[in-house]
Amino acid sequence: MKAHIFVTLKQGVLDPQGSTVQRSLQQMGYAAVQSVRIGKFMEVELAGTDREAAATQVDEMCRKLFVNPNIEEYRFELR
Amino acid sequence: MKAHIFVTLKQGVLDPQGSTVQRSLQQMGYAAVQSVRIGKFMEVELAGTDREAAATQVDEMCRKLFVNPNIEEYRFELR
Repeated sequence: MKAHIFVTLKQGVLDPQGSTVQRSLQQMGYAAVQSVRIGKFMEVELAGTDREAAATQVDEMCRKLFVNPNIEEYRFELR
Repeated sequence: MKAHIFVTLKQGVLDPQGSTVQRSLQQMGYAAVQSVRIGKFMEVELAGTDREAAATQVDEMCRKLFVNPNIEEYRFELR
């Protein structure tokens, strides 16, 4: 089973990397760009077929390793 | 309009960051973890409502700024 995990900065948390990319895009002529936010994307391959157990494990991994809950939020999909 | 862009390493390209995370997860007791690949996730907010024009622009941004085509691949969704 594969988990796709998305970690993004919470609304309101400053994203200097995103702001830099936004400025670059505007300087490159993409005037329509209004904001850019940069996050992380992880693919975790898991053995086993129990979706519920996998979801529990992935949620735990996010909270214990991948995500800083002070400034980040996450969601994941199992496929 | 919002574009969600996913940039991942191509199959076969070594991902040392992913390997490190994989080892950490195994040491934490997640024996089911078989592989971890780490990528980038970007949210770009665009003015305008023309989906086709937006798709063309986002594809161009990926090729010109976000993606190293030698080692990375990308996909995006418009919402």
